Amino acid sequence: MKEDIDKKSVDLCALYGEPEAVILANGDYPTHPIPSQILANAPYVVCCDGGADTYIAQGHVPNIIIGDGDSLSEENRRKYSHILHHISDQETNDQTKAVNFLMEQGKKNIVIVGATGKREDHTLGNISLLIDYMRAGANVRTFTDYCVFIPCRHTHTFSSQPGKQVSIINFGAHGLRGEGLVYPLSDFTNWWQGTLNECTGTEFTVHAEGEYLVVINY
Amino acid sequence: MKEDIDKKSVDLCALYGEPEAVILANGDYPTHPIPSQILANAPYVVCCDGGADTYIAQGHVPNIIIGDGDSLSEENRRKYSHILHHISDQETNDQTKAVNFLMEQGKKNIVIVGATGKREDHTLGNISLLIDYMRAGANVRTFTDYCVFIPCRHTHTFSSQPGKQVSIINFGAHGLRGEGLVYPLSDFTNWWQGTLNECTGTEFTVHAEGEYLVVINY
Repeated sequence: MKEDIDKKSVDLCALYGEPEAVILANGDYPTHPIPSQILANAPYVVCCDGGADTYIAQGHVPNIIIGDGDSLSEENRRKYSHILHHISDQETNDQTKAVNFLMEQGKKNIVIVGATGKREDHTLGNISLLIDYMRAGANVRTFTDYCVFIPCRHTHTFSSQPGKQVSIINFGAHGLRGEGLVYPLSDFTNWWQGTLNECTGTEFTVHAEGEYLVVINY
Repeated sequence: MKEDIDKKSVDLCALYGEPEAVILANGDYPTHPIPSQILANAPYVVCCDGGADTYIAQGHVPNIIIGDGDSLSEENRRKYSHILHHISDQETNDQTKAVNFLMEQGKKNIVIVGATGKREDHTLGNISLLIDYMRAGANVRTFTDYCVFIPCRHTHTFSSQPGKQVSIINFGAHGLRGEGLVYPLSDFTNWWQGTLNECTGTEFTVHAEGEYLVVINY
């Protein structure tokens, strides 16, 4: 079982290579073995504010904590003040501050975990921000307890397995066409239209001009 | 406390009047008092497949169960076969089948609960489908454990309270402009841009031509 998960995790990471840094966002703390293992193996960990509490409680120390500390426990705010990086910017959320911080350090291969669950508007925001991070030059993807979100521009081919559940969320791309998927793709105008597709073989291709999110369920 | 919740629930329901039916979808079973109370007070309950198991386990009996029964326990599939309504249509999910079923009965004032949580692609699908249900003539809104999602077309005014967290997710509307909100609205092209706004008074207005989702956090 552990080996299977290791292989799955490696396969999924291989999409963009091993991350230089992992961001633990402030949604539900990861419980699935894939995001958990990515976090455990991370060479550099940025926690978004309150996300640090659970991470620290599990015996880890993040490299840095981004945020204004208002959702961090008082004890951790005091104890880890030396790694608490306060960025005051009302226009961006903590996840974006963390991505910007890493990009400024030249770390472009980034994985985000803990970005979903809890408030749905936060989930929608965190997921859709991947498109902006891609535009800024980041190789970024979000691993949740169910799937990986990958922001894409133009045509891409993905390793997969037969029967794997795949969704394509269109962000204005044209000429959408799939290969190796059960249901045809088109220039979707609503999110649900590209959901619940399925891979037929060991890889699938999305042909497109423009931006979209690929969601691969574990 | 109970009175406060009652009042909040009534306020939010008052947006579109009391529902004629409540759909319990197949995401996380509601735990927040607002969706829980809406479900408890529902005049007619449609459960989506496996969602029925928890509902039944809590001592209730749905009016109808929609789905192919594959995520329903064997015991409930047998025991409630007389109210299990199988609709075979690969093109729609169980939530949509439930909405279509109610619309065919002339029930247009619909509340959906239990539509989020678990797989994020299901959450995205279920939320975005509200736009399609509105187009089909339904007065529909989704109550989660955190917020209510309301599909809108053109200008709308909402009762609210100062400090209430509000998000506007654009589905192609133009001329977006807010009144009674902290941050200005514009013709957002990405979901996150309209998130995390805040109400300044006892109501707010979204001026727009076209379709969008309003998210009001409790």
